Formats: sequence, C-alpha cells, structure tokens
Amino acid sequence: MKELLENERIDDLQYKGLKIIQNEKGFCFGIDSILLSDFASEIKENSKIVDLGTGTGIIAILISVKTNAKKTIGVEIQKRVYEMAKRSVKLNHLEDKIEIINKDIKEVLNELERGAFDAVITNPPYKKMGTGLINENEEKLISRHEITASLEDFIKISSQLLKDKGVIYLVHKPERLADIMENVRKYKLEPKKIRFVHPSIGKEANLVLIKCVKNAKPFLKIESPLYVYKEDGEYTEEILKIYNKKEYL
Amino acid sequence: MKELLENERIDDLQYKGLKIIQNEKGFCFGIDSILLSDFASEIKENSKIVDLGTGTGIIAILISVKTNAKKTIGVEIQKRVYEMAKRSVKLNHLEDKIEIINKDIKEVLNELERGAFDAVITNPPYKKMGTGLINENEEKLISRHEITASLEDFIKISSQLLKDKGVIYLVHKPERLADIMENVRKYKLEPKKIRFVHPSIGKEANLVLIKCVKNAKPFLKIESPLYVYKEDGEYTEEILKIYNKKEYL
Repeated sequence: MKELLENERIDDLQYKGLKIIQNEKGFCFGIDSILLSDFASEIKENSKIVDLGTGTGIIAILISVKTNAKKTIGVEIQKRVYEMAKRSVKLNHLEDKIEIINKDIKEVLNELERGAFDAVITNPPYKKMGTGLINENEEKLISRHEITASLEDFIKISSQLLKDKGVIYLVHKPERLADIMENVRKYKLEPKKIRFVHPSIGKEANLVLIKCVKNAKPFLKIESPLYVYKEDGEYTEEILKIYNKKEYL
Repeated sequence: MKELLENERIDDLQYKGLKIIQNEKGFCFGIDSILLSDFASEIKENSKIVDLGTGTGIIAILISVKTNAKKTIGVEIQKRVYEMAKRSVKLNHLEDKIEIINKDIKEVLNELERGAFDAVITNPPYKKMGTGLINENEEKLISRHEITASLEDFIKISSQLLKDKGVIYLVHKPERLADIMENVRKYKLEPKKIRFVHPSIGKEANLVLIKCVKNAKPFLKIESPLYVYKEDGEYTEEILKIYNKKEYL
C-alpha cells in the first residue's frame, strides 16, 4: 500500500508520536475531533470501541492510544477516505488495535455484533440535509451534511451497538441540541454529562460535547464551559493542554 | 386586607421601588426568580403574560413592570401564599396590571382562555416527587417538589395557554434538562435560547434559563454562561447589574 496519494500530507498529532494522513482538498480534522477525543478519554482501559463515521481515522487513532483500548473499529462510508484512514492506522503501527471498515453506518450491524461494545464515539455530520450552502466537493459534503445518514441514524445505531450501561460520546453543534436530546432519549441513551465549547468568554457556544449512558437513570451535569481563546486571542491554557502543547505552558 | 401576618416581612426588590411580602418560615424567593425575570425582560410591551406557580408573586410583579405588560396573571395553588401575593400586588399599586388567582395549574384552563397569551413565565418545583429529603413544612414542600403538578404538567399547560409563536421562559436545574427538552418538544415548544448559570468559573452549572417559542423552527442558541461569583467571592458585575445594585459598579 502506497503511503501518500496526490494532495495528501502527513500531520503530526502531537500525542505520543501519532500521525495522520489528510487530503488537503478533502475534509481535514478540526478542533472538534481533538476535543471529543479528550472528552472521551475517560473510557475504561481494554474497552471495545466503535467510531461511527471515522473519516481520516483521527478519533479512532487518538482514543485507541489514549484509553489503551482492546479494539477500536472505525466505520467510514467513503472508499477513498476509508483507504486513507487504513493507511494512517498502518503508519502508526496500530493494525492490531484498530480496524477500519468501509461501510454505511446503517448497514454496520450486518458486520458488528449488536450490544457488544463498551463505547461509541462519533463526530457526525452537523448540517441537516438541504441546509447551508452545498458548494463543496462530494467528500466534504458527506462529512458535513446528513446525506448518507441522519443524526437519528447515528444515535439509533450507537444505541444498538452498545452494551447495557455502554457509553456514547458525541460532538455536535449546539443549535441541534434539542434534536440530540430528543433522539438519545428515544433510543434509551441517557444524557449524563454535557460540556459546551465557547470561542471565548462572553460568546455563544459553537460546539457541544455530550456523554450518554445506555439505560442509565436521568441526572445530567453541565460542566464548566470550555473556552478556546483568551481575550488576547491566544489559546487558553486548557486548549494548549488538550493539544499537548506543553512547550507553551 | 391586613398588610402583614405573623412571620411576614416586606423586602425591597431594588427595582423602581417595588416591594414583596415574604413569610420568613415559608418559601422565600431566590436568585432564580431574579435571573428568570431578567432573562424574560425582552417580552414585548403590552403582552398578556401568565406566571405559572407564582408563589410570592415576585416574578409576576417584576415582569409586569419591567416589560410594561398589558396584563399579568399569577397562578398559585396555595391559599395562604396566594393571599400574600395579592397583598404584594396591592402594596405596589399594581391591581390594574396583575391578577393573582388561586388555582391548581392543572385547572387553570377552566378560567384562562386557551391560546390567548403572548408569554408564560415559570419557576416550577425543581425536585421530582420522591427525591431528596422531605423534611420541610408543607408550603416549602409544594414550592420545591413536584407534588401537585409535574414538570410535564407545567410545560403542557404553558403550551395550551400560549398563542402560536407565543414564548415560554423557565428556570430549572440543569440535571433535569433532558426531561425539559423532551417535554417541550412533545408540546410543540421549540427551545430557542438557553443560558446556564454557574456559581463561578470552573464550576458546573446549577441553574438553567430556557426560552422556547411555540411552533417555531428548530435552532437553539447557547448563550455565554452567567457566573454568579468572581474568584474573590464577590458578585460578578453582571449579577450586580441584574440586581440593580448600581452603587457597587
């Protein structure tokens, strides 16, 4: 398998030497993937984890190493992106720990065992079908819009994959919070912890991190907000810590 | 009507000379009522408003004056508390603007017209029946626990009272957010704006302020958090401003 194709580059994940292959013209990972991997890093050691809609594989790779997972399965519908994620797994010598499968998440239960997973982690497409400007290339489009699977599909399938008391971690836009809350309840995933991400103090939230537990009792904690930038425009200490930029602290 | 009964005192609301009668042994208003009245102060002038579970009448009195409402109706199930609220309305010479009625909210549609109100404002009991220590007097108990009406009752009846595109403002505990979101959606109240209240920076939220609009399209804003205390233990400037303590600014 060739390491890099046209327009691809290798980026350093600043964590234990991990690297990721990205396509400069495709969907590159953002702060949401990094924050979600950090938010979910409490997943117990030796867990079986599914990353639904893994894209470049960044979340699967980070969470596998951060939590010392038994097995992490990344599911990606797009053939070219799936192949790139597989090459990133190989590049990091994680083939024994991470499997990337090329499947529509709606068909994943044909391959993965129902009720067999300790955790699901997912960064689903944020935009409803038919909203926003659709002038992107197909790859970005599928990563950003609910074209091949809806938010409800992601939540329903997560619930089906999880064991009793299994945990799902997801990141989304706050504007969709009511949709998320309605759907997680519908599929017996009880919201237990939410953290909002704000660009800086005094600004509205632009991301939300949510942890739900399957078949748990209701009791939700809203954590202290996570701010990305300080007033002077520099990253906050918490963000630098999450990005592992120790040299700046 | 006698102004004060045993254990009652008159407190200054620090806003346009408004006063409130409270029973020192009963349920006294807290910061939640003040924050909710401030959060809802965007209600359009000349509105017809219902305050469901008005208690001492503090929210009805504040919102009536702050928004220059046409008519505000406070609904209170407890006879003694209802009478106290009526005396507070009289004390402030607001009898033409505010009506306090002594009714179970579940029966309020026998008296108030369905679909006739521009806004509902409510600070419902926070605790589920059967949770928490129940060692309080009956008055506090009914104000704090879902004994006479559940969260779902409050939301359902609010929706029934509101016009199309009418607005509800409510304050609650963040731990119940999933229950709230599930129920507002059930009764066609779409969450449009949420603000979390945190005791101070780095602490979990302990109150949530929610605005929903009847039959509106989904799109939720999570506002910047409201902090009550600064690191030095003093009130934040925003809280002092809400409390109208100009002298401290």
